[in-house]
Amino acid sequence: MSIETHIEKVVETPGILVVYWANGEVSNYPYLYLRDNCPSLSTIHSNGQKLIETSGINPAISPENTTLTEENEVQIDWSGEKHSSLFSAQWLFDHRLSKAAIAERHAKRNAMDGKVLWDEQLNNNLPAGDYAAVSASNEALCVWLEQVRKYGFAILRNVPAEPGMVCKVVSLFGYVRETNYGKLFDVKTTVNPNNLAFTSLGLSAHTDNPYRNPTPTLQLLHCLQSSAVGGNSIVVDGFKVIADLKAHSPQMFHLLSTTPVTFRFADQYNHIKRTETIIGLDVFGEVNAIRFNNRSVQPFEVDEDHMTAFYAAYQYLAKLIDDERYFVQFKMEASDLFIVDNERVMHGRSAYDGTTGQRFLQGTYADRDGLLSKLSVLKRDLARLVKSA
Amino acid sequence: MSIETHIEKVVETPGILVVYWANGEVSNYPYLYLRDNCPSLSTIHSNGQKLIETSGINPAISPENTTLTEENEVQIDWSGEKHSSLFSAQWLFDHRLSKAAIAERHAKRNAMDGKVLWDEQLNNNLPAGDYAAVSASNEALCVWLEQVRKYGFAILRNVPAEPGMVCKVVSLFGYVRETNYGKLFDVKTTVNPNNLAFTSLGLSAHTDNPYRNPTPTLQLLHCLQSSAVGGNSIVVDGFKVIADLKAHSPQMFHLLSTTPVTFRFADQYNHIKRTETIIGLDVFGEVNAIRFNNRSVQPFEVDEDHMTAFYAAYQYLAKLIDDERYFVQFKMEASDLFIVDNERVMHGRSAYDGTTGQRFLQGTYADRDGLLSKLSVLKRDLARLVKSA
Repeated sequence: MSIETHIEKVVETPGILVVYWANGEVSNYPYLYLRDNCPSLSTIHSNGQKLIETSGINPAISPENTTLTEENEVQIDWSGEKHSSLFSAQWLFDHRLSKAAIAERHAKRNAMDGKVLWDEQLNNNLPAGDYAAVSASNEALCVWLEQVRKYGFAILRNVPAEPGMVCKVVSLFGYVRETNYGKLFDVKTTVNPNNLAFTSLGLSAHTDNPYRNPTPTLQLLHCLQSSAVGGNSIVVDGFKVIADLKAHSPQMFHLLSTTPVTFRFADQYNHIKRTETIIGLDVFGEVNAIRFNNRSVQPFEVDEDHMTAFYAAYQYLAKLIDDERYFVQFKMEASDLFIVDNERVMHGRSAYDGTTGQRFLQGTYADRDGLLSKLSVLKRDLARLVKSA
Repeated sequence: MSIETHIEKVVETPGILVVYWANGEVSNYPYLYLRDNCPSLSTIHSNGQKLIETSGINPAISPENTTLTEENEVQIDWSGEKHSSLFSAQWLFDHRLSKAAIAERHAKRNAMDGKVLWDEQLNNNLPAGDYAAVSASNEALCVWLEQVRKYGFAILRNVPAEPGMVCKVVSLFGYVRETNYGKLFDVKTTVNPNNLAFTSLGLSAHTDNPYRNPTPTLQLLHCLQSSAVGGNSIVVDGFKVIADLKAHSPQMFHLLSTTPVTFRFADQYNHIKRTETIIGLDVFGEVNAIRFNNRSVQPFEVDEDHMTAFYAAYQYLAKLIDDERYFVQFKMEASDLFIVDNERVMHGRSAYDGTTGQRFLQGTYADRDGLLSKLSVLKRDLARLVKSA
């Protein structure tokens, strides 16, 4: 046991247990917190779910007795109930409640979940997997899913150019999100399209379905035919673009992350709309989403004093997104598939000439929760394999 | 035409078109905004999608000429491009950009989307529909979906007590959200459950899957067998509880809407977690979600100086949720189904005695976007019917 996780002594003070570590650090734990998180099986079910009602704990709960055991564990016999809690030094260390310790753990998690921002340089080293490999091997699947997590984008090659395969790829890691476009949808030129995607027009890079709440967090596109001239696929890392925009103008970043914008889709059978910021921030104030789709955006409702500044920010963002320095570009051939994190990476295409041949893709939506869960379980299981080898 | 939507005159000023209304009001429209939202078919496709790139418009765009037409429309011939825009007085009125006009429209939309908060009084008047009726009639379906929108909760009776029907009900308005629990899941006592839902224990009211991002926004539960003693269903309006908590203590409301909390679910095949506030706020600062599940919540990461205050807020919230004054309670009989907005209405059950009989439900998840879209289209189509009658 390292010195920093060795407990020197514990002292009961009113409302708070004070732990003195061997390295001189001192940590405070409210009794209520300790009772609520008691690791005993009568508090936490073996499946990890909490069995007690937090609301039922007396907020003034205190120990009858506190002992530092031979094994350097802290045993608390609670006053007023026949229950004891046993906390390992490691658990207490991992749950220190100083601002610094919490910030340190947060930074560590962020580093582990590290996303790699990218621009056109990624063209030299496209994240890609092989369908046969990821279908057959947990290691290969783990590597491919880790690329998706890290870059918000990855290619999968040699996916048999058969209808429906795009959903089969989803089943490797999660579940299809069905929408009004179906379980999957065909992307090709159609007559009277309800969506410009189903024309041969170029589409500047965008996120899909910002008008939908919840927006699908993953999109997959699989190429079944590719004989038309043009129609290059383009993907752009929205988080990289936002980072550069923020460096250029914190004011623009502020406007785009606080101003509500409405997105809308309507046809004979659907009427879907959502009002949200273009840049999404999580509870820590960190960027967690971009919603950008100039086709479905509605007239801005920004007051006359701020409209010009908002347009300047919007146009600046749109121009970055349309700047080739950020483009990863490739021509999808039959049996190529790519996946994007639809809240991070925008996708688009150049126009194609439908008179020169066919361009036929199938697309589907899915969600990140399944993918990240699968990735986490694969990593855990592979680590166990390594350990036991 | 009413006087308030009649234009008296229009005046070009630098960067801004000024509209003088017959009632004395004055409105300002930046030229960039007007060009971007030109209603011509070369700007907006007939399917409502924008065809031009906003980033491509010259921010200094100005009119060559502006005319108020005989029909009280504003025609702008743009300088530097061969394009004219024609705005009706009604469009300009509906898009006034003063702070007051924007706030007025926002309030009007909120009123139209009005949610009705409720407590135990709703027991006297349970929102409910009949399966045969909502399957056969658009009017009945519209009424039932409107109840779901308004209360975040509704019962549907006489849904044939056959496996899989819960998904068929979803197909009336939207799409099933498949998760690791399947397209649908059985809720009954099982051996070695990975989730306490699959025991006969009571479950205090909670939202489902707060550990999942995106969390499913709707849940449906359908009763196939109900012969066990106990097992009453309980639903609680989270938005009502939050409103009362906020009235009691704005400070508690602040803590619960700004403090990140982690929810987690793990078993052999899944590892899902999410960090979010318990009370969710939208971009306008209005409550748009509650995430409350004491079983999957992880040890709070609140620093030692604020932990006690956070626990006080959490316990206060949990006690309100567990207060019968907020309970709508009913015993589900075979063929009863209920739906909840899973980001608003919590559901739970009392314990039941598995030795006295069976309790067998099937559940599934779905999303609000499909339901609200269907409701909107039904309302539009029914309004047209009324008009043409």
